[in-house]
Amino acid sequence: MNPSSEERLKDRQPVWMEGSWVCMIDQRELPHQVKILRLDSYPKTIQAIREMALRGAGTIGVTGGFAVAQAALAAPDSRFWQEMERAAQEISAARPTAKNLSHAVGKVFSSMRREKEIAAARHRAVSEAQAFYDENVSMSERIGRAGVSLIPQGKAVLTHCNAGWLACTGLGTALAPIFMAHEQGKTVFVIATETRPRGQGAKLTTWELGQAGVPHALIADTAVGSTMLKGEIGLVIVGADRIAANGDTANKIGTYTLAVLARAHKIPFYVAAPSPTFDADCPSGDRIPIEERDETEVSHAEGSLHNGEKVSVRVATPGVKVRNPAFDVTPSDLITGFITEAGIIAPNPAAIARFLSSV
Amino acid sequence: MNPSSEERLKDRQPVWMEGSWVCMIDQRELPHQVKILRLDSYPKTIQAIREMALRGAGTIGVTGGFAVAQAALAAPDSRFWQEMERAAQEISAARPTAKNLSHAVGKVFSSMRREKEIAAARHRAVSEAQAFYDENVSMSERIGRAGVSLIPQGKAVLTHCNAGWLACTGLGTALAPIFMAHEQGKTVFVIATETRPRGQGAKLTTWELGQAGVPHALIADTAVGSTMLKGEIGLVIVGADRIAANGDTANKIGTYTLAVLARAHKIPFYVAAPSPTFDADCPSGDRIPIEERDETEVSHAEGSLHNGEKVSVRVATPGVKVRNPAFDVTPSDLITGFITEAGIIAPNPAAIARFLSSV
Repeated sequence: MNPSSEERLKDRQPVWMEGSWVCMIDQRELPHQVKILRLDSYPKTIQAIREMALRGAGTIGVTGGFAVAQAALAAPDSRFWQEMERAAQEISAARPTAKNLSHAVGKVFSSMRREKEIAAARHRAVSEAQAFYDENVSMSERIGRAGVSLIPQGKAVLTHCNAGWLACTGLGTALAPIFMAHEQGKTVFVIATETRPRGQGAKLTTWELGQAGVPHALIADTAVGSTMLKGEIGLVIVGADRIAANGDTANKIGTYTLAVLARAHKIPFYVAAPSPTFDADCPSGDRIPIEERDETEVSHAEGSLHNGEKVSVRVATPGVKVRNPAFDVTPSDLITGFITEAGIIAPNPAAIARFLSSV
Repeated sequence: MNPSSEERLKDRQPVWMEGSWVCMIDQRELPHQVKILRLDSYPKTIQAIREMALRGAGTIGVTGGFAVAQAALAAPDSRFWQEMERAAQEISAARPTAKNLSHAVGKVFSSMRREKEIAAARHRAVSEAQAFYDENVSMSERIGRAGVSLIPQGKAVLTHCNAGWLACTGLGTALAPIFMAHEQGKTVFVIATETRPRGQGAKLTTWELGQAGVPHALIADTAVGSTMLKGEIGLVIVGADRIAANGDTANKIGTYTLAVLARAHKIPFYVAAPSPTFDADCPSGDRIPIEERDETEVSHAEGSLHNGEKVSVRVATPGVKVRNPAFDVTPSDLITGFITEAGIIAPNPAAIARFLSSV
């Protein structure tokens, strides 16, 4: 029997398979309601990734793996490999910045390729996608253990966007050391940035922290500088969408600003990410494709009315021209270290190469 | 005959008196509609300042002057000076951070004090408040002239919050050099930050720039760092709410972050403000009172629905604890210079003292 949605939620699962269906918490509805999407075909799963029903590099990755399995279960024997080639390409291209997506798709697909029989390849796709999910959960816990000793006592941890379990399964990435410190009974106080334009900090990180009982406060993105200047922040931890071979890191727009501010205030700035987020084939940050998203994300804000109805409201002058890069790149020299499943890694090419060859 | 509201708008008047009434554009309704508030007593004017029907240091200042005149017109002869003392105190306290408010109130009130007859004092209050307004307009134009040569050709000017005519009368402060460059036919491109939580950049600055035909784009506050890193910004100009004797500058939350980023990217960072924004009695920034505003400004966003109806929507997790400082303080060493009605002033105590003694 499948676990109920409530059990999935309790178990911190942002996405899962039920037979040939891919099911996910629709993160666009949080924190207003927990709504489950059940998608019966891989093109619908691609659409859900594109429209950000779920997001976060890790979660996008495991969902890509499930989408490959979903395609494998649906593709007819007569043109199986041909359809799988196309599906794998389409799934990889659903969003450009996160490395985890193409990594997951490649991993599941190459594993299928090792089977001679189509039935065995289908079976392998499902088991490999689930194994990739489980491995993500395991990496997340190891990231938590690797980072827990960094949590400052008496000062707050600042985090940006959402890099908790909704974004990455398990304990998340940036939030993993925080959850672990809290579970170990350590004092931990988190300051979450709103993270405009989509507000993942305000809507998702504060929701996750609230559910877990971790003390926290929300600030506008504009308040980061003065909060640091007051000496309240002892550590910044963020997640990542793609890390180049030299350590340059693409993450949610605004991350680079936090890194510059952290350096100016001598605050350690860590990036928490598992190995699938690293891109050994990408030499430096200027080679990472940065997604430009719709103008309405900035000209509008999504929220709920008093009666709970979810609406999009215009918050900017009608007709205004908007620039909306979804990510920015933080140069490695602003990064104190990477918190990975293999421990803390220095932000230089040699250390990163050693790490990637060891996992 | 009084000018019509349309003429006031065309003449860029954010606030004015009609008899004993104080009238203003309700800036909370922009850009959705131009709504005029007409207030028949000074306590209502105080309330409008507190609730931010209008805002911006200069506009708050001139409105404070009008409120003193309004109080003078209403106070009975029998306890005129007693009531005026109380009114002046109440008006000065409407909002704590902007220096211009207490400056304006003090200026109008001390001018009244020089009259022996109550009727003459009332008359003086009205004429002095209007003179203070006119002087603000004149200072704004001189700020424009002082700053126009700073406008970079081929790169954008970044500004934060709203320091245009809605905020400061005339041409505004930070926007004055921009408007003047545009009127002189120079190429000017402005990047406006959204300025969460209240969105004055998205709602007011883009509206003003659009009305004036100045080319511009809107970005989320989180996109400032990457926009600077790309080399697109040649100049940052912001306004100010209070400038200490040593040059430390209180302005809208987020200004300090821009100053740190500008320094890191070697971009000139100017503060545009007239002499009433300077506080010679305040030795340094840590003595400037910083207003903490309501949590709902961050947990909610105000905007308009498709049908034009203005609503407030919840954009954060219900019950989340919010910190919402309305201003921050930028240390003078991050400021390239002050653009004032007497030209560009260096950000040091001696230059500031010379400037203040000359005006």
